[in-house]
Amino acid sequence: MNRVEVCLSPLLFDTISVNKSCIAVVVDVLRATTSFCAAFQSGVKSIRPVAQLSEARWLQSQGFLVAAEREGEKVDFADFGNSPVHFLKSILRGLDLVYTTTNGTQAIEMAKKCSKMATACFSNLEAAAKWLHAQNSDVVIMCAGWKNSFSIEDTLCAGALVKLLEETDLFTHSDDATEAALSLWALASTNNLNIARQSSHYRRLENLDQFDDLEFCFRIDVSRIVPVWDGTRLLPEIW
Amino acid sequence: MNRVEVCLSPLLFDTISVNKSCIAVVVDVLRATTSFCAAFQSGVKSIRPVAQLSEARWLQSQGFLVAAEREGEKVDFADFGNSPVHFLKSILRGLDLVYTTTNGTQAIEMAKKCSKMATACFSNLEAAAKWLHAQNSDVVIMCAGWKNSFSIEDTLCAGALVKLLEETDLFTHSDDATEAALSLWALASTNNLNIARQSSHYRRLENLDQFDDLEFCFRIDVSRIVPVWDGTRLLPEIW
Repeated sequence: MNRVEVCLSPLLFDTISVNKSCIAVVVDVLRATTSFCAAFQSGVKSIRPVAQLSEARWLQSQGFLVAAEREGEKVDFADFGNSPVHFLKSILRGLDLVYTTTNGTQAIEMAKKCSKMATACFSNLEAAAKWLHAQNSDVVIMCAGWKNSFSIEDTLCAGALVKLLEETDLFTHSDDATEAALSLWALASTNNLNIARQSSHYRRLENLDQFDDLEFCFRIDVSRIVPVWDGTRLLPEIW
Repeated sequence: MNRVEVCLSPLLFDTISVNKSCIAVVVDVLRATTSFCAAFQSGVKSIRPVAQLSEARWLQSQGFLVAAEREGEKVDFADFGNSPVHFLKSILRGLDLVYTTTNGTQAIEMAKKCSKMATACFSNLEAAAKWLHAQNSDVVIMCAGWKNSFSIEDTLCAGALVKLLEETDLFTHSDDATEAALSLWALASTNNLNIARQSSHYRRLENLDQFDDLEFCFRIDVSRIVPVWDGTRLLPEIW
Protein backbone atom coordinates (compact mmCIF):
# COMPACT_ATOMS: atom_id res chain seq x y z
CA MET A 1 0.00 0.00 0.00
CA ASN A 2 1.41 3.40 -0.97
CA ARG A 3 1.16 6.39 1.34
CA VAL A 4 -0.17 9.81 0.43
CA GLU A 5 0.41 12.92 2.55
CA VAL A 6 -0.76 16.51 2.15
CA CYS A 7 1.81 19.24 2.86
CA LEU A 8 -0.23 22.34 3.77
CA SER A 9 2.53 24.87 3.06
CA PRO A 10 6.01 24.77 1.49
CA LEU A 11 7.29 25.79 4.96
CA LEU A 12 6.05 22.47 6.36
CA PHE A 13 7.89 20.30 3.80
CA ASP A 14 10.51 19.21 6.34
CA THR A 15 7.79 17.88 8.69
CA ILE A 16 6.25 15.38 6.25
CA SER A 17 6.48 11.77 7.34
CA VAL A 18 6.64 10.15 3.89
CA ASN A 19 10.14 9.72 2.54
CA LYS A 20 11.18 12.72 0.44
CA SER A 21 12.17 10.39 -2.40
CA CYS A 22 8.42 10.08 -3.04
CA ILE A 23 6.54 11.72 -5.93
CA ALA A 24 5.45 15.34 -5.46
CA VAL A 25 2.27 16.86 -6.85
CA VAL A 26 2.16 20.66 -6.67
CA VAL A 27 -1.27 22.28 -6.30
CA ASP A 28 -1.83 26.01 -6.83
CA VAL A 29 -5.51 26.21 -7.79
CA LEU A 30 -5.57 30.04 -7.91
CA ARG A 31 -4.06 30.09 -10.41
CA ALA A 32 -0.69 28.73 -11.55
CA THR A 33 -1.35 25.00 -11.85
CA THR A 34 -4.79 25.64 -13.37
CA SER A 35 -3.11 27.90 -15.93
CA PHE A 36 -0.52 25.22 -16.74
CA CYS A 37 -3.36 22.84 -17.68
CA ALA A 38 -5.11 25.52 -19.74
CA ALA A 39 -1.91 26.39 -21.61
CA PHE A 40 -1.13 22.74 -22.42
CA GLN A 41 -4.77 22.27 -23.47
CA SER A 42 -4.12 25.02 -26.06
CA GLY A 43 -1.10 23.14 -27.38
CA VAL A 44 1.78 24.80 -25.50
CA LYS A 45 4.81 22.52 -25.92
CA SER A 46 6.60 23.13 -22.59
CA ILE A 47 6.44 25.32 -19.47
CA ARG A 48 9.58 26.38 -17.63
CA PRO A 49 8.79 27.74 -14.13
CA VAL A 50 11.38 30.26 -12.92
CA ALA A 51 11.69 32.01 -9.56
CA GLN A 52 12.98 35.44 -10.56
CA LEU A 53 11.48 38.12 -12.79
CA SER A 54 15.01 38.93 -14.06
CA GLU A 55 15.41 35.36 -15.34
CA ALA A 56 12.00 35.50 -17.03
CA ARG A 57 12.95 38.77 -18.72
CA TRP A 58 16.25 37.36 -19.98
CA LEU A 59 14.50 34.27 -21.38
CA GLN A 60 11.99 36.57 -23.10
CA SER A 61 14.92 38.24 -24.87
CA GLN A 62 15.93 34.75 -26.06
CA GLY A 63 12.56 34.26 -27.74
CA PHE A 64 10.44 32.61 -25.05
CA LEU A 65 6.87 33.68 -24.34
CA VAL A 66 6.67 34.85 -20.71
CA ALA A 67 3.85 34.62 -18.18
CA ALA A 68 4.64 36.65 -15.04
CA GLU A 69 2.43 37.57 -12.09
CA ARG A 70 3.08 39.30 -8.78
CA GLU A 71 0.41 40.01 -6.11
CA GLY A 72 -2.31 38.72 -8.43
CA GLU A 73 -1.53 41.07 -11.32
CA LYS A 74 0.31 40.73 -14.66
CA VAL A 75 3.86 42.08 -14.60
CA ASP A 76 4.36 44.91 -17.13
CA PHE A 77 6.89 43.34 -19.50
CA ALA A 78 5.18 39.93 -19.62
CA ASP A 79 3.18 38.48 -22.52
CA PHE A 80 0.70 36.91 -20.10
CA GLY A 81 -0.29 37.24 -16.46
CA ASN A 82 -1.49 34.25 -14.42
CA SER A 83 -5.02 34.07 -15.79
CA PRO A 84 -5.96 30.60 -17.10
CA VAL A 85 -8.66 31.95 -19.43
CA HIS A 86 -6.03 34.01 -21.26
CA PHE A 87 -4.23 30.79 -22.19
CA LEU A 88 -7.22 29.40 -24.09
CA LYS A 89 -5.80 30.52 -27.46
CA SER A 90 -4.94 28.30 -30.42
CA ILE A 91 -2.02 30.55 -31.44
CA LEU A 92 -0.12 29.12 -28.46
CA ARG A 93 0.26 25.74 -30.17
CA GLY A 94 3.85 24.49 -30.23
CA LEU A 95 5.29 27.37 -28.21
CA ASP A 96 7.59 27.22 -25.15
CA LEU A 97 6.42 29.22 -22.15
CA VAL A 98 8.38 30.66 -19.22
CA TYR A 99 6.32 31.11 -16.04
CA THR A 100 6.86 33.01 -12.78
CA THR A 101 4.27 33.66 -10.04
CA THR A 102 4.00 34.90 -6.47
CA ASN A 103 3.38 31.48 -4.94
CA GLY A 104 3.74 28.53 -7.30
CA THR A 105 7.50 28.93 -7.60
CA GLN A 106 8.50 28.11 -4.02
CA ALA A 107 6.31 25.00 -3.95
CA ILE A 108 7.84 23.81 -7.22
CA GLU A 109 11.36 24.47 -5.90
CA MET A 110 10.60 22.33 -2.82
CA ALA A 111 9.00 19.63 -4.96
CA LYS A 112 12.16 19.31 -7.07
CA LYS A 113 13.72 17.57 -4.04
CA CYS A 114 11.40 14.62 -4.70
CA SER A 115 12.03 11.84 -7.22
CA LYS A 116 9.36 13.03 -9.69
CA MET A 117 7.05 16.00 -9.89
CA ALA A 118 3.77 16.85 -11.59
CA THR A 119 1.13 19.51 -11.05
CA ALA A 120 -2.56 19.19 -10.28
CA CYS A 121 -5.64 21.38 -9.93
CA PHE A 122 -9.40 20.88 -10.11
CA SER A 123 -9.15 20.87 -13.96
CA ASN A 124 -7.10 17.66 -14.07
CA LEU A 125 -8.00 15.84 -10.83
CA GLU A 126 -8.87 12.49 -12.34
CA ALA A 127 -5.97 12.61 -14.81
CA ALA A 128 -3.55 13.37 -11.97
CA ALA A 129 -4.96 10.47 -9.93
CA LYS A 130 -4.53 8.10 -12.91
CA TRP A 131 -0.94 9.25 -13.41
CA LEU A 132 -0.20 8.70 -9.71
CA HIS A 133 -1.70 5.20 -9.78
CA ALA A 134 0.60 4.35 -12.66
CA GLN A 135 3.69 5.56 -10.75
CA ASN A 136 3.01 3.18 -7.82
CA SER A 137 4.95 5.24 -5.26
CA ASP A 138 4.38 7.25 -2.08
CA VAL A 139 3.05 10.74 -2.80
CA VAL A 140 3.25 14.17 -1.20
CA ILE A 141 0.70 16.73 -2.35
CA MET A 142 2.34 20.13 -1.95
CA CYS A 143 -0.11 23.00 -1.47
CA ALA A 144 1.41 26.25 -2.75
CA GLY A 145 -0.65 28.51 -0.48
CA TRP A 146 -0.38 32.29 -0.51
CA LYS A 147 3.12 33.49 0.39
CA ASN A 148 3.70 30.24 2.27
CA SER A 149 0.55 30.51 4.38
CA PHE A 150 -2.20 27.88 4.45
CA SER A 151 -4.76 28.20 1.66
CA ILE A 152 -8.23 26.70 1.65
CA GLU A 153 -8.59 26.17 -2.10
CA ASP A 154 -5.31 24.24 -2.41
CA THR A 155 -6.19 22.14 0.65
CA LEU A 156 -9.63 21.33 -0.81
CA CYS A 157 -8.06 20.25 -4.10
CA ALA A 158 -5.51 18.13 -2.22
CA GLY A 159 -8.39 16.52 -0.27
CA ALA A 160 -10.24 15.77 -3.52
CA LEU A 161 -7.12 14.14 -4.97
CA VAL A 162 -6.53 12.05 -1.82
CA LYS A 163 -10.14 10.84 -1.99
CA LEU A 164 -9.64 9.64 -5.59
CA LEU A 165 -6.38 7.91 -4.66
CA GLU A 166 -7.80 6.15 -1.60
CA GLU A 167 -10.94 4.96 -3.40
CA THR A 168 -8.74 2.49 -5.27
CA ASP A 169 -7.39 0.92 -2.05
CA LEU A 170 -3.86 1.42 -3.41
CA PHE A 171 -3.17 4.43 -1.17
CA THR A 172 -3.58 5.23 2.50
CA HIS A 173 -2.65 8.08 4.85
CA SER A 174 -1.84 8.39 8.54
CA ASP A 175 -1.21 12.10 9.14
CA ASP A 176 -3.51 14.84 10.43
CA ALA A 177 -3.09 17.27 7.54
CA THR A 178 -4.40 14.70 5.07
CA GLU A 179 -7.29 13.82 7.41
CA ALA A 180 -8.20 17.52 7.65
CA ALA A 181 -7.96 18.00 3.87
CA LEU A 182 -10.32 15.04 3.35
CA SER A 183 -12.78 16.41 5.94
CA LEU A 184 -12.75 19.88 4.41
CA TRP A 185 -13.27 18.43 0.92
CA ALA A 186 -16.19 16.30 2.20
CA LEU A 187 -17.71 19.45 3.74
CA ALA A 188 -17.15 21.50 0.55
CA SER A 189 -18.70 18.78 -1.61
CA THR A 190 -21.97 19.07 0.33
CA ASN A 191 -22.20 22.87 0.16
CA ASN A 192 -21.25 23.59 -3.45
CA LEU A 193 -17.73 24.74 -2.54
CA ASN A 194 -19.05 27.60 -0.38
CA ILE A 195 -16.01 27.29 1.86
CA ALA A 196 -13.75 28.04 -1.13
CA ARG A 197 -15.65 31.29 -1.64
CA GLN A 198 -14.71 32.26 1.93
CA SER A 199 -11.02 31.93 1.14
CA SER A 200 -8.87 35.02 1.22
CA HIS A 201 -7.44 34.37 -2.25
CA TYR A 202 -10.94 34.00 -3.76
CA ARG A 203 -11.89 37.37 -2.28
CA ARG A 204 -8.60 38.89 -3.46
CA LEU A 205 -9.37 37.84 -7.05
CA GLU A 206 -13.00 38.99 -6.75
CA ASN A 207 -11.65 42.40 -5.81
CA LEU A 208 -9.54 42.32 -8.99
CA ASP A 209 -12.70 41.45 -11.02
CA GLN A 210 -11.27 38.07 -12.02
CA PHE A 211 -14.69 36.37 -12.10
CA ASP A 212 -13.98 34.30 -15.25
CA ASP A 213 -10.84 32.90 -13.64
CA LEU A 214 -12.67 32.01 -10.43
CA GLU A 215 -15.37 30.15 -12.33
CA PHE A 216 -12.73 28.37 -14.47
CA CYS A 217 -10.45 27.36 -11.59
CA PHE A 218 -13.17 25.41 -9.76
CA ARG A 219 -14.37 23.37 -12.74
CA ILE A 220 -13.53 19.72 -12.17
CA ASP A 221 -12.02 17.31 -14.74
CA VAL A 222 -12.12 19.50 -17.81
CA SER A 223 -8.65 18.33 -18.87
CA ARG A 224 -6.89 14.97 -19.25
CA ILE A 225 -3.46 16.64 -19.22
CA VAL A 226 -0.91 16.12 -16.45
CA PRO A 227 2.03 18.56 -16.54
CA VAL A 228 5.06 16.38 -15.64
CA TRP A 229 8.53 17.69 -14.75
CA ASP A 230 11.32 16.33 -16.99
CA GLY A 231 14.24 17.87 -15.05
CA THR A 232 14.10 21.30 -16.69
CA ARG A 233 10.53 21.86 -17.87
CA LEU A 234 6.96 20.71 -17.44
CA LEU A 235 5.73 18.63 -20.37
CA PRO A 236 2.14 17.53 -21.01
CA GLU A 237 1.08 13.91 -20.62
CA ILE A 238 -2.44 12.76 -21.45
CA TRP A 239 -4.14 10.45 -18.92
CA MET B 1 -12.99 45.18 15.97
CA ASN B 2 -10.07 42.99 17.04
CA ARG B 3 -8.64 40.33 14.75
CA VAL B 4 -8.05 36.71 15.64
CA GLU B 5 -5.85 34.37 13.61
CA VAL B 6 -4.99 30.69 13.97
CA CYS B 7 -1.36 29.70 13.41
CA LEU B 8 -1.46 26.01 12.44
CA SER B 9 2.19 25.26 13.30
CA PRO B 10 5.05 27.14 15.01
CA LEU B 11 6.81 26.96 11.61
CA LEU B 12 4.09 29.19 10.13
CA PHE B 13 4.42 31.95 12.73
CA ASP B 14 6.20 34.28 10.30
CA THR B 15 3.30 34.04 7.84
CA ILE B 16 0.58 35.34 10.17
CA SER B 17 -1.05 38.57 9.04
CA VAL B 18 -1.91 40.00 12.48
CA ASN B 19 0.81 42.16 13.98
CA LYS B 20 3.18 40.10 16.14
CA SER B 21 2.69 42.57 19.00
CA CYS B 22 -0.70 40.89 19.48
CA ILE B 23 -1.58 38.47 22.29
CA ALA B 24 -0.62 34.83 21.83
CA VAL B 25 -2.60 31.86 23.10
CA VAL B 26 -0.72 28.56 22.96
CA VAL B 27 -2.79 25.39 22.46
CA ASP B 28 -1.36 21.91 23.03
CA VAL B 29 -4.44 19.82 23.82
CA LEU B 30 -2.51 16.52 23.98
CA ARG B 31 -1.31 17.25 26.56
CA ALA B 32 0.83 20.13 27.81
CA THR B 33 -1.70 22.96 28.04
CA THR B 34 -4.35 20.61 29.43
CA SER B 35 -1.86 19.52 32.08
CA PHE B 36 -1.07 23.15 32.98
CA CYS B 37 -4.77 23.70 33.77
CA ALA B 38 -4.97 20.48 35.79
CA ALA B 39 -1.85 21.37 37.79
CA PHE B 40 -3.12 24.88 38.60
CA GLN B 41 -6.51 23.39 39.48
CA SER B 42 -4.65 21.34 42.12
CA GLY B 43 -3.08 24.49 43.54
CA VAL B 44 0.32 24.59 41.80
CA LYS B 45 1.71 28.11 42.30
CA SER B 46 3.69 28.56 39.09
CA ILE B 47 4.83 26.64 35.98
CA ARG B 48 8.14 27.36 34.30
CA PRO B 49 8.31 25.85 30.79
CA VAL B 50 11.88 25.03 29.72
CA ALA B 51 13.20 23.75 26.40
CA GLN B 52 16.03 21.46 27.49
CA LEU B 53 16.05 18.37 29.68
CA SER B 54 19.42 19.49 31.11
CA GLU B 55 17.87 22.73 32.37
CA ALA B 56 14.96 20.83 33.92
CA ARG B 57 17.39 18.49 35.68
CA TRP B 58 19.42 21.40 37.06
CA LEU B 59 16.28 23.12 38.36
CA GLN B 60 15.24 19.83 39.98
CA SER B 61 18.54 19.90 41.91
CA GLN B 62 17.54 23.39 43.09
CA GLY B 63 14.32 22.06 44.62
CA PHE B 64 11.77 22.39 41.83
CA LEU B 65 9.32 19.64 40.96
CA VAL B 66 9.91 18.59 37.35
CA ALA B 67 7.47 17.36 34.70
CA ALA B 68 9.34 16.05 31.64
CA GLU B 69 8.05 14.16 28.62
CA ARG B 70 9.63 13.06 25.35
CA GLU B 71 7.84 11.11 22.58
CA GLY B 72 4.74 10.77 24.75
CA GLU B 73 6.51 9.12 27.71
CA LYS B 74 7.77 10.33 31.11
CA VAL B 75 11.50 11.01 31.23
CA ASP B 76 13.29 8.81 33.81
CA PHE B 77 14.54 11.45 36.25
CA ALA B 78 11.30 13.49 36.28
CA ASP B 79 8.72 13.67 39.06
CA PHE B 80 5.89 13.74 36.52
CA GLY B 81 5.37 12.99 32.84
CA ASN B 82 2.89 14.94 30.72
CA SER B 83 -0.29 13.25 31.93
CA PRO B 84 -2.94 15.72 33.16
CA VAL B 85 -4.64 13.14 35.39
CA HIS B 86 -1.40 12.71 37.36
CA PHE B 87 -1.58 16.40 38.33
CA LEU B 88 -4.93 16.00 40.09
CA LYS B 89 -3.28 15.73 43.52
CA SER B 90 -3.83 18.04 46.48
CA ILE B 91 -0.20 17.62 47.65
CA LEU B 92 0.80 19.87 44.74
CA ARG B 93 -0.71 22.95 46.42
CA GLY B 94 1.73 25.87 46.62
CA LEU B 95 4.53 24.18 44.70
CA ASP B 96 6.54 25.53 41.73
CA LEU B 97 6.71 23.25 38.71
CA VAL B 98 9.27 23.07 35.88
CA TYR B 99 7.86 21.65 32.63
CA THR B 100 9.45 20.36 29.42
CA THR B 101 7.68 18.49 26.60
CA THR B 102 8.24 17.33 23.02
CA ASN B 103 6.00 19.95 21.42
CA GLY B 104 4.69 22.65 23.73
CA THR B 105 8.09 24.25 24.23
CA GLN B 106 8.67 25.50 20.68
CA ALA B 107 5.19 27.02 20.46
CA ILE B 108 5.75 28.80 23.79
CA GLU B 109 9.15 30.08 22.64
CA MET B 110 7.52 31.54 19.50
CA ALA B 111 4.66 33.01 21.52
CA LYS B 112 7.11 34.88 23.77
CA LYS B 113 7.67 37.22 20.79
CA CYS B 114 4.12 38.52 21.30
CA SER B 115 3.13 41.20 23.83
CA LYS B 116 1.34 38.78 26.18
CA MET B 117 0.89 35.05 26.34
CA ALA B 118 -1.54 32.59 27.89
CA THR B 119 -2.38 28.94 27.28
CA ALA B 120 -5.66 27.32 26.35
CA CYS B 121 -7.16 23.86 25.91
CA PHE B 122 -10.62 22.34 25.92
CA SER B 123 -10.59 22.44 29.76
CA ASN B 124 -10.50 26.24 29.93
CA LEU B 125 -12.07 27.35 26.63
CA GLU B 126 -14.62 29.77 28.07
CA ALA B 127 -12.20 31.15 30.66
CA ALA B 128 -9.61 31.78 27.93
CA ALA B 129 -12.23 33.54 25.80
CA LYS B 130 -13.22 35.76 28.76
CA TRP B 131 -9.57 36.63 29.44
CA LEU B 132 -9.06 37.52 25.76
CA HIS B 133 -12.16 39.74 25.72
CA ALA B 134 -10.78 41.64 28.67
CA GLN B 135 -7.42 42.22 26.93
CA ASN B 136 -9.10 43.94 23.93
CA SER B 137 -6.27 43.21 21.49
CA ASP B 138 -5.58 41.22 18.32
CA VAL B 139 -4.94 37.54 19.02
CA VAL B 140 -2.92 34.73 17.47
CA ILE B 141 -3.82 31.20 18.53
CA MET B 142 -0.65 29.16 18.24
CA CYS B 143 -1.22 25.44 17.69
CA ALA B 144 1.70 23.44 19.07
CA GLY B 145 1.19 20.47 16.75
CA TRP B 146 3.39 17.38 16.83
CA LYS B 147 7.04 18.17 16.10
CA ASN B 148 5.94 21.27 14.21
CA SER B 149 3.48 19.44 11.97
CA PHE B 150 -0.24 20.26 11.76
CA SER B 151 -2.38 18.61 14.43
CA ILE B 152 -6.12 18.10 14.28
CA GLU B 153 -6.85 18.33 18.01
CA ASP B 154 -5.07 21.67 18.44
CA THR B 155 -6.77 23.05 15.31
CA LEU B 156 -10.19 21.95 16.62
CA CYS B 157 -9.56 23.64 19.96
CA ALA B 158 -8.41 26.81 18.16
CA GLY B 159 -11.61 26.72 16.08
CA ALA B 160 -13.72 26.35 19.22
CA LEU B 161 -11.96 29.34 20.80
CA VAL B 162 -12.40 31.48 17.66
CA LYS B 163 -16.12 30.63 17.66
CA LEU B 164 -16.48 31.87 21.25
CA LEU B 165 -14.54 35.06 20.45
CA GLU B 166 -16.53 35.86 17.30
CA GLU B 167 -19.92 35.23 18.95
CA THR B 168 -19.39 38.46 20.90
CA ASP B 169 -18.91 40.54 17.72
CA LEU B 170 -15.70 41.93 19.24
CA PHE B 171 -13.46 39.74 17.06
CA THR B 172 -13.24 38.89 13.38
CA HIS B 173 -10.87 36.98 11.10
CA SER B 174 -9.86 37.16 7.46
CA ASP B 175 -7.37 34.31 6.93
CA ASP B 176 -7.87 30.81 5.58
CA ALA B 177 -6.35 28.91 8.50
CA THR B 178 -8.92 30.40 10.88
CA GLU B 179 -11.74 29.68 8.42
CA ALA B 180 -10.58 26.06 8.17
CA ALA B 181 -10.31 25.72 11.97
CA LEU B 182 -13.88 27.03 12.36
CA SER B 183 -15.15 24.62 9.69
CA LEU B 184 -13.39 21.64 11.25
CA TRP B 185 -14.73 22.56 14.69
CA ALA B 186 -18.28 22.87 13.28
CA LEU B 187 -17.87 19.42 11.72
CA ALA B 188 -16.48 17.93 14.94
CA SER B 189 -19.30 19.42 17.01
CA THR B 190 -21.85 17.50 14.94
CA ASN B 191 -20.10 14.14 15.17
CA ASN B 192 -19.06 13.96 18.81
CA LEU B 193 -15.41 14.82 18.05
CA ASN B 194 -14.97 11.72 15.88
CA ILE B 195 -12.44 13.57 13.76
CA ALA B 196 -10.25 14.07 16.85
CA ARG B 197 -10.21 10.32 17.32
CA GLN B 198 -8.77 10.00 13.81
CA SER B 199 -5.82 12.19 14.75
CA SER B 200 -2.36 10.65 14.79
CA HIS B 201 -1.62 11.93 18.31
CA TYR B 202 -4.87 10.42 19.66
CA ARG B 203 -3.88 7.05 18.19
CA ARG B 204 -0.33 7.44 19.53
CA LEU B 205 -1.67 7.89 23.08
CA GLU B 206 -4.17 5.04 22.62
CA ASN B 207 -1.19 2.82 21.79
CA LEU B 208 0.42 3.96 25.07
CA ASP B 209 -2.81 3.02 26.94
CA GLN B 210 -3.40 6.65 27.96
CA PHE B 211 -7.20 6.32 27.88
CA ASP B 212 -7.81 8.41 31.03
CA ASP B 213 -5.78 11.26 29.53
CA LEU B 214 -7.66 11.12 26.24
CA GLU B 215 -11.01 11.29 28.01
CA PHE B 216 -9.78 14.15 30.22
CA CYS B 217 -8.23 16.23 27.43
CA PHE B 218 -11.49 16.52 25.45
CA ARG B 219 -13.70 17.59 28.37
CA ILE B 220 -14.83 21.17 27.78
CA ASP B 221 -14.92 23.98 30.37
CA VAL B 222 -13.98 22.01 33.48
CA SER B 223 -11.69 24.81 34.67
CA ARG B 224 -11.92 28.58 35.07
CA ILE B 225 -8.14 28.94 35.22
CA VAL B 226 -6.11 30.73 32.55
CA PRO B 227 -2.34 30.18 32.80
CA VAL B 228 -0.83 33.61 31.98
CA TRP B 229 2.86 34.30 31.27
CA ASP B 230 4.44 36.88 33.60
CA GLY B 231 7.81 37.07 31.81
CA THR B 232 9.42 34.08 33.47
CA ARG B 233 6.59 31.74 34.53
CA LEU B 234 2.96 30.86 33.92
CA LEU B 235 0.72 31.98 36.78
CA PRO B 236 -2.96 31.05 37.26
CA GLU B 237 -5.72 33.60 36.78
CA ILE B 238 -9.36 32.75 37.46
CA TRP B 239 -11.90 33.90 34.82
